[in-house]
Amino acid sequence: MNPERKNNSFLHQKASVDENAYIGSYTAIGKGVKIESDVYISKGAVIYGNALIQAGTYIGENCIIGHPQRNDLTKITKEKQEITEFESPLITIGKDCTIRAGTIIYSEVSIGEKCQTGHNVMIREKTTIGSNTLIGTNTIIDGNVIIGECVSIQTGVYIPLYSKIGNNVFMGPFSKLTNDKYMTRKEFALIGPDIEDNVSLGANSVILPGITLKRGTMVGAGSVVTKNTNENDIVIGNPAKLLKKIPEDWS
Amino acid sequence: MNPERKNNSFLHQKASVDENAYIGSYTAIGKGVKIESDVYISKGAVIYGNALIQAGTYIGENCIIGHPQRNDLTKITKEKQEITEFESPLITIGKDCTIRAGTIIYSEVSIGEKCQTGHNVMIREKTTIGSNTLIGTNTIIDGNVIIGECVSIQTGVYIPLYSKIGNNVFMGPFSKLTNDKYMTRKEFALIGPDIEDNVSLGANSVILPGITLKRGTMVGAGSVVTKNTNENDIVIGNPAKLLKKIPEDWS
Amino acid sequence: MNPERKNNSFLHQKASVDENAYIGSYTAIGKGVKIESDVYISKGAVIYGNALIQAGTYIGENCIIGHPQRNDLTKITKEKQEITEFESPLITIGKDCTIRAGTIIYSEVSIGEKCQTGHNVMIREKTTIGSNTLIGTNTIIDGNVIIGECVSIQTGVYIPLYSKIGNNVFMGPFSKLTNDKYMTRKEFALIGPDIEDNVSLGANSVILPGITLKRGTMVGAGSVVTKNTNENDIVIGNPAKLLKKIPEDWS
Repeated sequence: MNPERKNNSFLHQKASVDENAYIGSYTAIGKGVKIESDVYISKGAVIYGNALIQAGTYIGENCIIGHPQRNDLTKITKEKQEITEFESPLITIGKDCTIRAGTIIYSEVSIGEKCQTGHNVMIREKTTIGSNTLIGTNTIIDGNVIIGECVSIQTGVYIPLYSKIGNNVFMGPFSKLTNDKYMTRKEFALIGPDIEDNVSLGANSVILPGITLKRGTMVGAGSVVTKNTNENDIVIGNPAKLLKKIPEDWS
Repeated sequence: MNPERKNNSFLHQKASVDENAYIGSYTAIGKGVKIESDVYISKGAVIYGNALIQAGTYIGENCIIGHPQRNDLTKITKEKQEITEFESPLITIGKDCTIRAGTIIYSEVSIGEKCQTGHNVMIREKTTIGSNTLIGTNTIIDGNVIIGECVSIQTGVYIPLYSKIGNNVFMGPFSKLTNDKYMTRKEFALIGPDIEDNVSLGANSVILPGITLKRGTMVGAGSVVTKNTNENDIVIGNPAKLLKKIPEDWS
Repeated sequence: MNPERKNNSFLHQKASVDENAYIGSYTAIGKGVKIESDVYISKGAVIYGNALIQAGTYIGENCIIGHPQRNDLTKITKEKQEITEFESPLITIGKDCTIRAGTIIYSEVSIGEKCQTGHNVMIREKTTIGSNTLIGTNTIIDGNVIIGECVSIQTGVYIPLYSKIGNNVFMGPFSKLTNDKYMTRKEFALIGPDIEDNVSLGANSVILPGITLKRGTMVGAGSVVTKNTNENDIVIGNPAKLLKKIPEDWS
């Protein structure tokens, strides 16, 4: 395919688009973008900044990849710059990812191969996500976050600034990490939780700022975790208390 | 109106569009779509697969109707197929529905007449929704779900796979059903709750996997329901406990 | 710039667009719209009704400003009116605001200067928001709401009909106000909470209908507030109880 011929899409002449990529209508591809072979860019999606979309990846309708960070956005607005001219720190979306419609990914994000997002996911800057990780619909990752491999993030999860998440973690629907202990009432440096490998968080659970959930911890649905846990603790309630250890016969 | 004449919209030549339908700009209507009279398709909306939009229905800006299921999406991406060529199991949006801007409805969904959605609702495959049901903004229905008639689903509700919801149910804002008891830590078949007729769920309440809420149960805001209820129980707290029965003089 | 020359955007000939505004592609600007100088309208955004976008404001991709209220939407749909012909009560977005991609703002909303929204915010009709207020991604403001100045509304907050929020309030991520005590089970006029100045709400907290949180109240994460508070109370738990007063040495 020759993307230049595609109706109703804007492709910057300096962008690099493999001839085996598919570019849908009403899209916009900026100056510093590199799109590898067998990428599929759906209708209405935009790719800005220095985004690298690796081979075999799908970008759904109306996605925004390479959204400018705050200062860059201010500059673009003030100077009335064409946003497709804007260059940025690198964004990498790995091979064979599925980025579903409506997802917004800021500049300076790196996503490993074979990751999937649901719809309307938002991932802000300075975030690294390992391969084979799933990120559910409406999940918000607020920047400066490290997420491991093979993590299952369900629908509507909230991961604020400065959170750290290990490998093989399961974050149930609408589970929420927090980072702001005093909520503007007292000086406090934001500090996210540290979620170690193999932790499972129940639906709508809340983890308080700076808490460490040790490897294999399991948190019940609707729990509010106010204290660090030990390995393989099962904690439940508000505030969460130890129910028991993970039984031997569970995997 | 002759939709062929409309600027900047794509209408597949095999699609069936009633001459009394309104088709906005930057829309795309696929091969297997049937649009009845007095339908209003807003700017930027796309209708894919074998979608039937019945008479008098409104589709808001940037909606995606007939979104491909996972396997179909993989096939479209790999083959770089035009998505407007894709055919699917039937999607039916009944008469006189209002589907507000940003809503995404997958293939193999059936919605009765006079239903309304808020914005950015997401409804996945194999879901049936009765007539006169409201579905609030940002609500997620994750597929394989049955919902009755005259249900009021408020903002931000979560309905996972294999949930069942009766008639005249009220689901308060951000109430959440769950289906995954062991969160990958032990073999477990996902099992959604069974919400019988006339149940009311408070804001941000959580219902655990497999729980049955008997007819007329009322769940307080912020409650976590871990046990089945009896008819007309009012339960509150985390974990939820019986407060009292519904008083005789209510409704 | 002469916006008439811009490719692929619709600009109603009666709209008033300052020559120093930037209008992106695939946008639509309706009949009653007034856009001041140094406004930046991104790709795919639409501005309907009688919207006034004041100088220096940024509108992100796919935003909908001036969305019709229910009755107006019904009329537009039934008459198959071009939505860019629709006139409405005034919408004002003040100077130097940043309205990020995907945000939807209904008609009859007034937003002060230097406000910011995250992505996919939804603000319904008859709402007034003071200057210097931040509104996080996915926050829903359901109409008939008054919000003060310098309020920090984090990600995913819910503010229902008839809520009142003072100045310098901090609403943590996914905090939720409610207004419906009996959830259709008994006659009840919806009544929102009254959140006074300098209140801080923890993440995922829930405030019950009609509750007043007195000036300086602080609510812990995951709490469910069922009773009015006194000034500078710190309350936590489900149901929330007084932990202590705000210490003297906090700001």
